Amino acid sequence: MNTDVLVIGGSAAGLVAAMTEKSNNPEKKVILVRKEQKVMIPCGIPYIFGSIGTSDKNILPDGGLEKLGVEIHVAEIAAVDAQKKTAMTTAGEEINYEKLIFATGSKPVVPKWLKGTELKNVYTILKDKEYLDGLQSKLSGLKKIVLVGAGFIGVEVADELNKQGFDVTIVEILPRILGLAFDDEFAAAISEKLTERGVKVRVGIGIKEILGDSMVSGVLLDNGETMEADAVVLSIGYRPNVELAQKAGADINAAGFIVTDQYKRTSLPDCFAAGDCSEKRDFLTGKLSGIMLASTACAEARVAGLNLFALSTICTFRGTIGIYSTCIGETACGVAGLNEVTARSEGFDVVVGSFTGVDTHPGCLECSQKQTVKLIVSKVNGTILGGETLGGRSVGELTNVIGFAIQNNMTINDLLVAQIGTHPLLTASPAGYPLIKAAEVVAKALKNA
Amino acid sequence: MNTDVLVIGGSAAGLVAAMTEKSNNPEKKVILVRKEQKVMIPCGIPYIFGSIGTSDKNILPDGGLEKLGVEIHVAEIAAVDAQKKTAMTTAGEEINYEKLIFATGSKPVVPKWLKGTELKNVYTILKDKEYLDGLQSKLSGLKKIVLVGAGFIGVEVADELNKQGFDVTIVEILPRILGLAFDDEFAAAISEKLTERGVKVRVGIGIKEILGDSMVSGVLLDNGETMEADAVVLSIGYRPNVELAQKAGADINAAGFIVTDQYKRTSLPDCFAAGDCSEKRDFLTGKLSGIMLASTACAEARVAGLNLFALSTICTFRGTIGIYSTCIGETACGVAGLNEVTARSEGFDVVVGSFTGVDTHPGCLECSQKQTVKLIVSKVNGTILGGETLGGRSVGELTNVIGFAIQNNMTINDLLVAQIGTHPLLTASPAGYPLIKAAEVVAKALKNA
Repeated sequence: MNTDVLVIGGSAAGLVAAMTEKSNNPEKKVILVRKEQKVMIPCGIPYIFGSIGTSDKNILPDGGLEKLGVEIHVAEIAAVDAQKKTAMTTAGEEINYEKLIFATGSKPVVPKWLKGTELKNVYTILKDKEYLDGLQSKLSGLKKIVLVGAGFIGVEVADELNKQGFDVTIVEILPRILGLAFDDEFAAAISEKLTERGVKVRVGIGIKEILGDSMVSGVLLDNGETMEADAVVLSIGYRPNVELAQKAGADINAAGFIVTDQYKRTSLPDCFAAGDCSEKRDFLTGKLSGIMLASTACAEARVAGLNLFALSTICTFRGTIGIYSTCIGETACGVAGLNEVTARSEGFDVVVGSFTGVDTHPGCLECSQKQTVKLIVSKVNGTILGGETLGGRSVGELTNVIGFAIQNNMTINDLLVAQIGTHPLLTASPAGYPLIKAAEVVAKALKNA
Repeated sequence: MNTDVLVIGGSAAGLVAAMTEKSNNPEKKVILVRKEQKVMIPCGIPYIFGSIGTSDKNILPDGGLEKLGVEIHVAEIAAVDAQKKTAMTTAGEEINYEKLIFATGSKPVVPKWLKGTELKNVYTILKDKEYLDGLQSKLSGLKKIVLVGAGFIGVEVADELNKQGFDVTIVEILPRILGLAFDDEFAAAISEKLTERGVKVRVGIGIKEILGDSMVSGVLLDNGETMEADAVVLSIGYRPNVELAQKAGADINAAGFIVTDQYKRTSLPDCFAAGDCSEKRDFLTGKLSGIMLASTACAEARVAGLNLFALSTICTFRGTIGIYSTCIGETACGVAGLNEVTARSEGFDVVVGSFTGVDTHPGCLECSQKQTVKLIVSKVNGTILGGETLGGRSVGELTNVIGFAIQNNMTINDLLVAQIGTHPLLTASPAGYPLIKAAEVVAKALKNA
């Protein structure tokens, strides 16, 4: 079989890369090969355990691909020969391509040193519909669930399982939940919400072993404490899926990702990579980064798709800005760029400023919630390095406002005189808009610094 | 009495100018003179008729001013002598100042040609607590209310009065509601919502006369039709309050605003102006503009406050980007920059692109609403000229994301590869984020143009 473009992987990056290419070059034949009959919307997975209720409603639609004429092949690629420009499926089918995109994603970490991971009722959050369906049905009769790892996935799954009536404990070795993304005060606010809602949160403690005979009976913590559990869900993190590219000879970086340039080209001729499997460098430092986000994957996939057959010097990937958000009940929080801890540990001399206001105006409206914005700013030149938000659901998009400030290298002076739109029911007040007020706090601190 | 800074006007612009100055130069004495004992939050006014219920809960707090040590004087300034640097109150008190800021705001338009405006039960939406309290109590026994003018204020007041059970008709001479701000399709969506909720919307028709003896009995429309009314509320627009500055000799521009430069300095020595009374120029054309928004006022006030005693070349006002939003029920819409009609009439050669998706993902979540983004882009260089949004309440901040794109002169290529953060409960999906998808539609159109 011949194709102009072969995309390997059907999640966010593969989908967007295929659609971007086909949409811009309809005359090209684009084949997307994926293992899954039906692909999960990655960020929706935690919600199948509660709000959505079933994986059937969390399927990444094929309509967009089909409408454009991208051919979807459900198969597994066993090997790629980048010199011959050919890929081989496990079923022995050969696909000759002009351009190839690795969008092979990531898979959950299961630590080798951890005893007991082979026991019955030990799970991960694998991005696989059948696996998740199995997990969901197996949990249904159980009571006590221990989640190991309080990153976004762990926290969101914990909250959703708790909503379903499970007795949920989340165990995190770092001193706070969501710890790598947020500064203390934001993580603490979300932790409090989780606790209020009934999730037991244990931070600053690791697990030593998963206990049980054939079946999980509990976990042994670092401090010798034993915790009963009917099931253990490992949400420790994800590792890039690079075996296929590596076997084909692609360079892999020190963090384990497929090396790519700013056009998302790998070291192999005519091979690109996008999404969780591909190299990320921090927007502000250029250092290798391990951030895995569907939104980042989509941006990378657009860059790959736009540069496949001819480089576009204006559509390049200038480094990853981690832009995250989450929501527990009606409390949401977000971060764009570097938080204070990360910025300082990277060596930035920073000034920070926070402001807490209300996300509607006046604040007596039924829907009003407190809203906090914290800005992390370079003392040297006033550049916005990062921002954190906490408030109602509007902080999702507010975090993107900060993301655009970072992407455009805005400084604190730019923010001081920035124009924003406000509305009583939709945003904070113009005189008390926390993003601008936080900028004022920073500006004052910079003046006195 | 002597002061370093005299601010005339206590609404958004006056408040923010005074706070900005005092916060940055605590050693300066700042006096804010205003006519009102208690100041209304301007954008909250429509909501006192329904959601908020009373003007008492819509008061711009004095706490921020007091905490900083800004002195509030409730008085009216009768005259300013900019040569002598002195202002005189109507009570005959003299205030000597070093720097003065006109923040005298705006007042509702009452057309002179319109017969019947003197009748009882003809009102405007004056930004005055006592007047509004009177209006609210006088309306309470009545049934049929006709609003004249379907701008933001008219539409929001109509919806709130309708919620309170009044029989509300809104009459607009333009062919659509919110007509100057939005393109047809967005205005139509909001119009439909209003109608669904029970407001009678009449567009493309003007009023000729307000009917009645001493008391309103109805309105006579352009087409000869008569409409019964117990009260008429004129929401035709606002006119800048410039009498004081004009009498003092300040230049007034052709649109009726106090002329200001990019530091918000007027033509009078040491006199600045900010907010509704002060000159606005469009960010993209440099042409005089009549936009009056509390958010614009606050941005201008920050610029004035930061430049009073020494010019900051980096904190200047580079022109007004109209960023509006509103919300009828759970349907919100926003606009940043130029809409298509305005852009074309200004002489831009534009390409537009729209995309409709869902504001959460997957779209089956309880809180999901459709979300549309339309982008208006220069064909010449791909610069984002404007964007319109329609969806749930998150479009308030999403409109600010577009506002930041415009402020940073982002092009369609920048948007194609822009990084955004997404979350199932808070935003559209990363693969179907309407802002980026609309950019793709535009990029394709540009390619084929």
